[in-house]
Amino acid sequence: MYKVGIAGATGYTGLELIQLIHRHPQMTIGWLTSENSAGGALADVHPVPWDYPLISLDEAVGRADEVDVVFLCLPHAASIGPVKRFQSAGVRVIDLSADFRLVNQSIYERWYKTTHTAPELLTEFVYGLCEVNRAKIRNATLIANPGCYPTSVNLGLYPLAKAGWLGNKVIIDSKSGVSGAGRKTALTYQFVEAHDNMTPYSIGVRHRHIAEMEQVLNHANGHSGPHRFIFSPHLLPVNRGMLSTMYVSAPAGVTESQIRDLYAETYAGEPFIHLLPAGQQATLRHTTNTNRCAISITPADPTEPDGADYIIVSTLDNLLKGASGQAIQNFNIAVGLEETMGLL
Amino acid sequence: MYKVGIAGATGYTGLELIQLIHRHPQMTIGWLTSENSAGGALADVHPVPWDYPLISLDEAVGRADEVDVVFLCLPHAASIGPVKRFQSAGVRVIDLSADFRLVNQSIYERWYKTTHTAPELLTEFVYGLCEVNRAKIRNATLIANPGCYPTSVNLGLYPLAKAGWLGNKVIIDSKSGVSGAGRKTALTYQFVEAHDNMTPYSIGVRHRHIAEMEQVLNHANGHSGPHRFIFSPHLLPVNRGMLSTMYVSAPAGVTESQIRDLYAETYAGEPFIHLLPAGQQATLRHTTNTNRCAISITPADPTEPDGADYIIVSTLDNLLKGASGQAIQNFNIAVGLEETMGLL
Amino acid sequence: MYKVGIAGATGYTGLELIQLIHRHPQMTIGWLTSENSAGGALADVHPVPWDYPLISLDEAVGRADEVDVVFLCLPHAASIGPVKRFQSAGVRVIDLSADFRLVNQSIYERWYKTTHTAPELLTEFVYGLCEVNRAKIRNATLIANPGCYPTSVNLGLYPLAKAGWLGNKVIIDSKSGVSGAGRKTALTYQFVEAHDNMTPYSIGVRHRHIAEMEQVLNHANGHSGPHRFIFSPHLLPVNRGMLSTMYVSAPAGVTESQIRDLYAETYAGEPFIHLLPAGQQATLRHTTNTNRCAISITPADPTEPDGADYIIVSTLDNLLKGASGQAIQNFNIAVGLEETMGLL
Amino acid sequence: MYKVGIAGATGYTGLELIQLIHRHPQMTIGWLTSENSAGGALADVHPVPWDYPLISLDEAVGRADEVDVVFLCLPHAASIGPVKRFQSAGVRVIDLSADFRLVNQSIYERWYKTTHTAPELLTEFVYGLCEVNRAKIRNATLIANPGCYPTSVNLGLYPLAKAGWLGNKVIIDSKSGVSGAGRKTALTYQFVEAHDNMTPYSIGVRHRHIAEMEQVLNHANGHSGPHRFIFSPHLLPVNRGMLSTMYVSAPAGVTESQIRDLYAETYAGEPFIHLLPAGQQATLRHTTNTNRCAISITPADPTEPDGADYIIVSTLDNLLKGASGQAIQNFNIAVGLEETMGLL
Repeated sequence: MYKVGIAGATGYTGLELIQLIHRHPQMTIGWLTSENSAGGALADVHPVPWDYPLISLDEAVGRADEVDVVFLCLPHAASIGPVKRFQSAGVRVIDLSADFRLVNQSIYERWYKTTHTAPELLTEFVYGLCEVNRAKIRNATLIANPGCYPTSVNLGLYPLAKAGWLGNKVIIDSKSGVSGAGRKTALTYQFVEAHDNMTPYSIGVRHRHIAEMEQVLNHANGHSGPHRFIFSPHLLPVNRGMLSTMYVSAPAGVTESQIRDLYAETYAGEPFIHLLPAGQQATLRHTTNTNRCAISITPADPTEPDGADYIIVSTLDNLLKGASGQAIQNFNIAVGLEETMGLL
Repeated sequence: MYKVGIAGATGYTGLELIQLIHRHPQMTIGWLTSENSAGGALADVHPVPWDYPLISLDEAVGRADEVDVVFLCLPHAASIGPVKRFQSAGVRVIDLSADFRLVNQSIYERWYKTTHTAPELLTEFVYGLCEVNRAKIRNATLIANPGCYPTSVNLGLYPLAKAGWLGNKVIIDSKSGVSGAGRKTALTYQFVEAHDNMTPYSIGVRHRHIAEMEQVLNHANGHSGPHRFIFSPHLLPVNRGMLSTMYVSAPAGVTESQIRDLYAETYAGEPFIHLLPAGQQATLRHTTNTNRCAISITPADPTEPDGADYIIVSTLDNLLKGASGQAIQNFNIAVGLEETMGLL
Repeated sequence: MYKVGIAGATGYTGLELIQLIHRHPQMTIGWLTSENSAGGALADVHPVPWDYPLISLDEAVGRADEVDVVFLCLPHAASIGPVKRFQSAGVRVIDLSADFRLVNQSIYERWYKTTHTAPELLTEFVYGLCEVNRAKIRNATLIANPGCYPTSVNLGLYPLAKAGWLGNKVIIDSKSGVSGAGRKTALTYQFVEAHDNMTPYSIGVRHRHIAEMEQVLNHANGHSGPHRFIFSPHLLPVNRGMLSTMYVSAPAGVTESQIRDLYAETYAGEPFIHLLPAGQQATLRHTTNTNRCAISITPADPTEPDGADYIIVSTLDNLLKGASGQAIQNFNIAVGLEETMGLL
Repeated sequence: MYKVGIAGATGYTGLELIQLIHRHPQMTIGWLTSENSAGGALADVHPVPWDYPLISLDEAVGRADEVDVVFLCLPHAASIGPVKRFQSAGVRVIDLSADFRLVNQSIYERWYKTTHTAPELLTEFVYGLCEVNRAKIRNATLIANPGCYPTSVNLGLYPLAKAGWLGNKVIIDSKSGVSGAGRKTALTYQFVEAHDNMTPYSIGVRHRHIAEMEQVLNHANGHSGPHRFIFSPHLLPVNRGMLSTMYVSAPAGVTESQIRDLYAETYAGEPFIHLLPAGQQATLRHTTNTNRCAISITPADPTEPDGADYIIVSTLDNLLKGASGQAIQNFNIAVGLEETMGLL
């Protein structure tokens, strides 16, 4: 039985982890931290029947020896200090923030507009995109859990990138449920503002999640990019779920059948990848409340069955495969448990 | 053409008034105030194409002579000062706050837990429940616009109370859209918290809107209460709309037919009361985006057609008939315009 | 490992069962039936990645020996024939329809307006309200799974009824998510009709689920009713979740503290009952996507702390504790597994 | 005062027209038809307080002389017969179906997969895209009201097309509220299926609304296409509202400032076009429940301010500017009333 600490347990990804751990036969909760509610109890913050005290991050660091693994659900840039403390205490770290996802310090600093204070750790972390990096995740003690948008996009496009068939310009139109914005008060995310509404934001080449797409897709399996990602996220009036509609151009001569085979082969045996058959589209419903990623492949023009233009649709639950579910999947892989344990 | 000032124009009731005034053939906007956004423009705060500057309340008081009527959409207790200033400047005042709805100072102070600093004005204000107080509203210069829950309950029960048929204990189960909480950030009203959820709050004898129900229904037409109102509001995952399910006991011997006649007679010719025929229930859809109140009457037990127990359902749009729509209706009545002008 | 058959597998309760069984370590699917889609596959009907063929009920009856238990998710009155067939084949039956919930034939026939064609089985079935009937459910081979509304109401009021403190008239204002209506097309349940709407239906003494409330609460622990249940369901614009606001009158002299103790004692150790502390209200969020029932107790008037009037709020997920989750709980109890297995 | 007939009055566009006509000072309802509910009354079908009988289309044709204008809200291909009858009776016709939107018979037949039985009328109809075709709409007696998607796309891209700056490949990712599917029962549009979901459909070069985009944009102002439109609609879980995110490539040398000027000039004085300033995005909220179309212009890459890639976002209310609102606007223009009458 593995003991778990969660730093930042009262946000949506923290709460999701707690629920997953309750369902996981080999995990149990050691401590939970919350800077806002330290001294209180989980049940005061969330409508759950579980009696866990909430402690401060400082106290948790002092109690590092009580846990086998810590999941960090902290705001960006806040993970760096705790990572070092837990690492030196010999605790496995799975970081859900963006702080250690990018290998390249200057790319991090350009997109996140902050100096990285632990650049020496960047290459020690493994990027936890399970289906792509599984071999490196095994036995890893420092895992950077991918962002939700990049997971959706990278899983959707990785086979094409790996084959060198992704094309130069990639247009990604993504739609995300509101929980992706985190559990914080802001007028934009008030019910009355978001309900019955849809809002594009940071569209084009503005959202920092593009860096994770470039990192994975520009270097997939020796094929070199760089690809030009135009990425437009939209706020969708649902709590959870993410759908990315991706417009790509395959090289001349590549057929739909070849592309389908490529995806089938790349993801053969993957328990959490759901490839839709021709004619079906991935929807939020395929993946909400699951750890799955659903992917559909559609040639743009039915009168040109093997034309260049394809539309790849990828969906996932931003709190599960896009965050806490993938974090548990990473944990299972890292410690050698059945990869699907607690995630079905 | 009447010139209008709106104090507190960037909240949901203020925005609704602006939209109604744009549609009203005899009203035009003089100035708009916003304490948070004074110096800015309406289009920076709301997704509207109208170029109005936002000024401070202080500045607006100095420009009282530019308007014929001012609608106060201020937080409770904030209206008292401005009311005096606008009154002395000869401007008609329609106050959407609760400050002047209750005639009795001590009742106000008990429910609102604050000392009333202008008790001498309490009896000068007319309570603007149009269908009940129309005669007093004509030519009124100080009008207190009713609360949303009380409008829903009072219109639904007034005929029974007037006839002395309301019974002693009245159980009111109300459901309100989230805009009723106003345009402010709070975790409870964040999208992820309110969506796919329903939350009871201030249930029983706890919500201060009960005072308006007692004021209207305990003294309807000479019939005396006091009635015991058990009133349970619930937060409903819609933006706008309010539904009150009301459980009442009629005196022995009163038949369903008599009750239907009573309602039909009480509301004969009322342009904004929609009485549903037997067998139909009032729903939000009957009234959303309209200034109407829909009312349905159902004997509780079909095997006792003239039994004592009745269920009255009343719906309205909390931002229209429950706030800004009724405010315009009050204005139309007060100045002698067609009562429905701009409200269809 | 138990093999499971599901008759009517493509409705919402059937789909929910399939998902629960995938998560249950001791259950596996034998066959699935669908009258509309027999010959097709589950993945053609629902967005799931599981390759199950759909067969007809007739075929399933012939393959009764392949399963240990069958869950019947059929329309009311359609279960009666299959129950006999599966019973005689020695298969355990958990029936999610209403056909065997009521012990009394004439009460069934009065509410369901149909002649019962297997009245001899009515007393052989155990009513599967787990927390109330656990002893009888153990080893039961014929279990009638309770309705969603009655589960919500009965769990919320059972302690009071058992103590003889329920009072005569009980007013129940219930709100249910749209999945309660089943997976069928009807204008009322179209998105545009139900979204941003709320609709009361079958209010008063009209809904047949009242029969299950009377059966449980009028005879709880020797205390006799009859209680008069006024029960008003409302369609709520969410997919899943049910909230019942219940207005009861306790006998003079009973204090809030006694009532809280009564509930705590009645439900001590119950894994799926979540009693809220004083001052907190049960909300949909407490129970959505769980097999729990959350219950809150509130004295109506804070100025009369031990007055007669109480408001009990009870919530559950209509597809889990209100249907398929409770069905699995019944299965676990009946066969002697850990009661919470597969349900956390 | 103009008398109006509506054929197909009980669908969502018909109901919307009725509400608009009630608000319009120069229009009044003559008769309403409904094939399903002929003989009944409007209030039996919709939650409105208006007492209109519903008649059959056959009867309406016989009563053509009672109205000045007829709005046809019939299914595609059903308008053709009635158009001839009303035309010969001298009644102005505004057709909301697709039957007369396309000038070219073979294009119609290819996309709609049906033979057109009145091709001689195709060139008599004026395509009622008000901001583009205003001059032709004046005095027109046969007006084809545009589709909702094409209105959103054509208004958003017309300035670029007119200037010859639209680029060859145009990628359009559209999201539409469920009312766009009409008032009919289908599993896809049931609440439980569409709520908390998002579904792509007919993506790529499959949706027949592409024909209207080609008709308008390939021939705008002498600049010739053909453009390649890749158009991907998605079902959005809201009742009303449509958002199109459009990815275009401008010619080298054209600056953002030139593009903004182009839009400002093209739409100068247009009462229903809301151009957003730089840095703001069009959202559903800008246009829901209004007859407006909101348009925002964003250079894709902020580091290449005058690069080729632009993202145009266009929103409108599919039932108003995308259907019934534009139909009234067309009527106002055709008969010479103030264009905004009844539409503010």
